[in-house]
Parts: sequence; structure tokens; C-alpha cells
Amino acid sequence: MRMYDIIKKKQSGEELSTEEIDFFIRGVTDGDIPDYQISALLMAIWFRGMTTRETCDLTFAVRDSGEKLDFSAIDGIRVDKHSTGGVGDKTSLVVAPIVASYGVKVAKMSGRGLGHTGGTVDKLEAIDGFRTTLSEEEFIAQVNRIGLAIVGQSRQFAPADKKLYALRDVTATVDSMPLIAASIMGKKLAADDDCIVLDVKTGSGSFMKSVKESRELARLMVDIGKSAGKKMVALITNMDRPLGHAIGNSLEVAEAVETLKGHGPEDLTSVCITLAGRMLSLAGKGTPAECEKMAERAISDGSALKKLMETVSAQGGDARLIAEPANFRKAQYAYAVKSRAEGYIAKVDTEAYGIASLLLGAGRNTAEDKIDHSAGVILRKKTGEFVKKGEEIATLYAGDPALFGAAEERLLSATVIGREKPADEPLIYDVVE
Amino acid sequence: MRMYDIIKKKQSGEELSTEEIDFFIRGVTDGDIPDYQISALLMAIWFRGMTTRETCDLTFAVRDSGEKLDFSAIDGIRVDKHSTGGVGDKTSLVVAPIVASYGVKVAKMSGRGLGHTGGTVDKLEAIDGFRTTLSEEEFIAQVNRIGLAIVGQSRQFAPADKKLYALRDVTATVDSMPLIAASIMGKKLAADDDCIVLDVKTGSGSFMKSVKESRELARLMVDIGKSAGKKMVALITNMDRPLGHAIGNSLEVAEAVETLKGHGPEDLTSVCITLAGRMLSLAGKGTPAECEKMAERAISDGSALKKLMETVSAQGGDARLIAEPANFRKAQYAYAVKSRAEGYIAKVDTEAYGIASLLLGAGRNTAEDKIDHSAGVILRKKTGEFVKKGEEIATLYAGDPALFGAAEERLLSATVIGREKPADEPLIYDVVE
Repeated sequence: MRMYDIIKKKQSGEELSTEEIDFFIRGVTDGDIPDYQISALLMAIWFRGMTTRETCDLTFAVRDSGEKLDFSAIDGIRVDKHSTGGVGDKTSLVVAPIVASYGVKVAKMSGRGLGHTGGTVDKLEAIDGFRTTLSEEEFIAQVNRIGLAIVGQSRQFAPADKKLYALRDVTATVDSMPLIAASIMGKKLAADDDCIVLDVKTGSGSFMKSVKESRELARLMVDIGKSAGKKMVALITNMDRPLGHAIGNSLEVAEAVETLKGHGPEDLTSVCITLAGRMLSLAGKGTPAECEKMAERAISDGSALKKLMETVSAQGGDARLIAEPANFRKAQYAYAVKSRAEGYIAKVDTEAYGIASLLLGAGRNTAEDKIDHSAGVILRKKTGEFVKKGEEIATLYAGDPALFGAAEERLLSATVIGREKPADEPLIYDVVE
Repeated sequence: MRMYDIIKKKQSGEELSTEEIDFFIRGVTDGDIPDYQISALLMAIWFRGMTTRETCDLTFAVRDSGEKLDFSAIDGIRVDKHSTGGVGDKTSLVVAPIVASYGVKVAKMSGRGLGHTGGTVDKLEAIDGFRTTLSEEEFIAQVNRIGLAIVGQSRQFAPADKKLYALRDVTATVDSMPLIAASIMGKKLAADDDCIVLDVKTGSGSFMKSVKESRELARLMVDIGKSAGKKMVALITNMDRPLGHAIGNSLEVAEAVETLKGHGPEDLTSVCITLAGRMLSLAGKGTPAECEKMAERAISDGSALKKLMETVSAQGGDARLIAEPANFRKAQYAYAVKSRAEGYIAKVDTEAYGIASLLLGAGRNTAEDKIDHSAGVILRKKTGEFVKKGEEIATLYAGDPALFGAAEERLLSATVIGREKPADEPLIYDVVE
């Protein structure tokens, strides 16, 4: 088999065989195929696309390029939720304890934030003492004991994806549906869950800008997961505005806790109930509607909050911060961003909001950057709300007041104020089963 | 300027600016752009194509990536002919002396053969003592003195093309019209001719398999040459069969000499008269029809043959071989390939005929291979002729009889024999001015 022939075949619009895709990914992983041939094929895939069968094969080959987890020692049904990445997305911190409070197992491997998107591991590390690295034995024992553990990805999952992504990033081939799906699902399927709920974020703060594209990606990923024997569902959720009011690590943990206490922002609470409902339903706990009721009950009776505190304690974190998030270490400086105009917030560039938080120290430009867990943004006004000139629309938090200027500029220029109240947009566009 | 943005722009179907194309080729030449970005752009160009303006810019950037010749010290009009490469194509050896015999200057830089196609420099080196390397002063002085000199490409012409071609060759992006045109014309325009006649070979022995594609390539190259201020014309000629009967270096020189003596094969003679007529006409010697008559006269009165002998002598070659080609050193072994069927030769795979000659030692697989100047093939029967079973259709020549088996197989399997006499095909499909 020659890489040249594989490039030629895809270039001419033909379907690659399973063997050809395996050969490609093996060569990428082993370093046997030179970068210039990999990027030529990536560009040909960008133009020609891939069938669902090819995309499944690509995903499985990516999954099989590195280590895989074995969760067979975990008793009970294992459910995970995966978001394609957004701004202010602290849903994992809410839904995982809800689901675990019903005895469904959540053995969660989470990522770190990069660019404008945050990561669950960073958020948890805002809790003093919280260990995001556990041995495999500790991890599995904790899941069996309390139903929930959340750790960082310490292993070499899907190394082929790492290599492919680095090349896609510099050759303008990131935005290819099969390549996106294989990247996300290749890593996801390296874990050993029974059920996966995907949260496909859509809009200015996410990778997918249109609902149509998101639906297509969701369909593809659900089909891939099913063909790997998983129970799958995908929600397409609105990321044309940040979720909730908090962006930044300890700020988001606090907001998640408020949500588990029943005082969370309406949008965040609603998305979390839907996600948790779908997770419970996939795990066989009832219909989605019944399971949403269960999720609401886990909040109102305090069992979900208790589960989060239990998890934090089990992983060495200070559970008093969960009991009372006001005790989180505050940023040294706060700054009020005031509106320069009067009117309705017509729309916002959510990605730019994420970048503003990054500029304050809450995020990373590169994987090596250190982050400030106290930094971030609290939105005082969101899309659809009316603001007067000079009224505070957001509060910025940072360890250095020199960081406020650029973040304020970014935030204000990302906020469109108009005379008309914008039409309401759905929070959840669609469910793909 | 960032290479990423250039890739993205071409990928989305937009036209690249002159500055962007210059940036790209400068980066290719200097090694500043990594191979994986170059190949991603080449693949995007393969899919999206280029406008004539972009292709001109690409050609000029390739031309300007290395050294260029200055022929201003040559008196008179300088004309060249360039073939896109075929099998048995010895036309340069015939047309250059014809044209030079009328005082039009031919300062010819020729290539070596590679793969199934031959090269004029290899053919000339079949003549004992012939020097294909001259100093620039010697070269120009010879052209001024006798009107004709033919040397190999010793200089670093168009190094960007060398780099691009190496990548195209391994990424399935060779067959892109703008990339082909820029490669050919970028090198051609590094020489300093006033008029260029292009011979675009078409059919099974050439790069362009269809007349339609050839016409498109010819149009593009003629337009590029004109926009560089050259007088241009392109002939589209038939390469669905070898030109003449001889394939292989000394065999082809001998056939060229026979043609200059007026005893050449009809097809070769006819193509040479047309090419030489167009060269003379571009140089201002008359209409194409008038100039064809002049070309015929240069053969019938012996002046073209005299010019070739003069040139061979001037470059240190043994002119007695030109006077009497029977004196060329013969290959040690000859072998008769006999037809296994009876009927008309319906069609042949000309490229395979070229490969058969290569297998006998007459050509090169890689630029480093040594060649055997006496090896090759003489066709005894060509397309349209009737053969009996067991009748000789070709004679093979080699220095080692072990080479005959593979060459015979290649040749026979490339020869389709049928019951119907095939329709005549034109020798010259079109003239693009």
C-alpha cells in the first residue's frame, strides 16, 4: 500500500477502504508517513469529505492509535457527557453529581482549557487541594465507592489525533466535518463508557457557527458512537452567548455550586437539567422527561450538591469551598466595565468574551501557559437585556490591573447594542438520537 | 503575510494576489515555508485551479527564483522550440539546424531524459566527443558564429520548480494545469529567447492524454509567454504513437540525420517541417506556409545537414558520424520481437514503448542512472500497419541479452492488434497562436 495512491484515490472522490485508513493512521502514529503527504490527504479530505463508513473507520483507527481505558472493574452503567467546547460552560460540574447521585457511574476524564474555551480540570484545580491526577486503581475505586471521579487526561490517548490536529491547525484543514468528528470521537471512545451524551455547542462562542453544521456533526458523532456499540444522544445547544454569568475557573465553580443549590442562572440550570436527564435516560432510568424530573429533584433535595462535596473531599479538595463558595480566594483587583451606549444587548461575540477572560489570566494561549484560577468575568447583563449608558455590563477580575484595558476593549467591541430587543433564541436547538 | 492565510484563501476559491504568490515562491525557494504547508496549497490549487493572471504570476515567480540567462550579446533573433516530452521525439536535432541555416539564432538549452521520455542532451552525447557543457562565452560565441549551439542545463534555473515538482510528485498534484504550465514556462522563460514554439505532445506517450487538455495547456502557456513579451505559438501534436521508428539515443540521432538527408519517416519529417516553419515564421521570415517551403528547401539542398555537422564539429563531436550514421557504435545484441497475432496494429501504448527502451538501458529511472547510448528500439511496424503472426514488429538493441525479455513483454502487451484497420489520426491536431 502506498500513501500516494491513497491521496490520489481520495482526491478523485473515491471512498477509502478500512485497510487504507488504517494504513494512513498507523503511518501517522509511527511517523512513517511524511508530513507533506499527511497534509495533502487532509486537504483532499477537506474538499471531498468522507462517507460515514470512512469517518467511523478513521475514528476507530485514531482511537486505536494509543492507550485505551478498561472500565470493566466499575460496577454499573457508565455514562459520560462531552461538550465540543464553549465559554462559561460549567455543566460537567453540575450534571456529573446529579447523575452520580442516582447511582449511575461517571468516570470522567476531562481536558484543560485552550484559547477561548475553558476546561473542567482547570476549574476543579481552583479548589484548594483538589487532585486531578489519580492512579487507575484510585480512580476506579472512587467511582465504585461514590459513583463519581473526575481526573485529567494523563495518558497518551489517541496520539494520531495530536499529530493530525497539529497539521490541520497550520494547513487550514481544521473545519472539516469528518476530521472534527474523528478527532472528538477518537479520543472519547478511548475511554470505556456505556453511554455518551454529546453537547454540541453552536454559535459565536463555539467551533460550529451554524445549527445546520452542528446538526450534521451531531448526527455523524452519534452514528460513530453507535457503531462502536455505545448508547448515544447529542444535544445542540446555544453558544451565541456564554452559558450563565461566570467565565473563569473559581467563578465558574461558584456558579455551578449555586446551580446545584437551586439558585443558578436560568439558562445554565435549564441546559444542565436537559443534559442530566438525557444521561440518566440513556442509563435506563426512565424517559427523558421522567429523568429531567429526577435531575430537578437531585437539586431540590440537595443530593447532587452532597455528591459534589463527597467527590471533592475524596479527591483531596477543600469541600468547605463547595459548601460556601464565597470563601474562594478572590482576585486582587476588580473592574467594572460600563456600557458606552444605551439600548438592548442585541448580540455578542461569545468567543471574544472567552478571549477577554483569557487576557485576564483565566485561560491559556498555549498548552504551557499558567493560569490564574481567580481571574475572569462576571456578566451583569446578557443578550436581550436593556442597559443604560454608563451602567455596568460586566465585572472583570485579575491579579494585575494592567490586564483590564485590553480585556475591556475586547468585551465592549464584542457587544452589539441596538434599539430593538432581539428575538429570543432557543437554548437547545435540537436533540439528535 | 502568513502562509496559512494564503492556503485558506485558495482553499475557499479566491484569487491569490501577485504579492501572495511571490511570498509563496520566495518561501519555497528560501526554505522558509514547511513542506506540509506547500503541499496543502498545491492540493488546494489542484482542486480550485488558478486564473491566467495567477498562473502568469506563479510562472514569473518561479522563473525569478534562480539564475536567468542574458542573450543580449547574441546578434539577431533568437528562437527556441520546446516539447512537453514524448517518445522518439528527435525533432530538435532536425529543426534547430534547419532554422539556423537561415541565419535565425538557436541558443538551445536542453534537458536529459527521465522515465519514458528522452532528452536531446542524451542523444547528442551519443556522438563521440560531443561536449554538452560550454562556458557562457563559448556558447554565445558559437551561436553568433554558426547560429546554433545546444548545451545541457548546467545552471540553477528555477530552483523553486525543482522543490515544487519533488513535492507534487509525491502528493498526487502533478496533473494540475496551472502547476504544469508554471513549471514548464518558469524554466523556459529563464532563458532569453525572442520567440518560442511549443510542441504540446498529446496521447498515450505524453503527459496530456486528451486533445482538449492539450489545447487548454497550450493556450495557457502561449498566454504566459506573450505576457512575458515573447512571440509564441504552440502546436498540438500526436503522441499516440512514437514519432518516427527509432527510440534510443544513437538510433534517434541516426534517424534525425536521415530526415535531414530527406529520407526520414513521413510522420517525423512532416512534424519537423511544421515546427521549423513556425519557428522561422515567428522570427519574421514569412508566413507559416512560406516558411515551411523554406524548411523543405533547407533539407533538399543539404544546408540543414551541413549546419548540424558544423555544430557537432564546433562542440567537439565526430562529424563523420553525422555524415554516415552507420558508423555509430552498435549495441552488442539485437533481438527481433515477433507478433503473436495477425491483424492491424490498432493502437499502442506509447509510454510503454518508451519504458521498453528504458529497460534496454536507453533511459533513466532516476536522474542518477547511467544510460547506454546504443540501446533502444527500432519499430518495424507502426499503428495502422498489417502484421502476420510471427512477423517482426520491432528490433531491440541492448548491451546485455538478459534485458530483452522484460522489454519484449512490455512492448507486446502495449501493442493492440485488431481485425479492422484503425482510422487515420492527424499528426498535428491544432495550432494555438
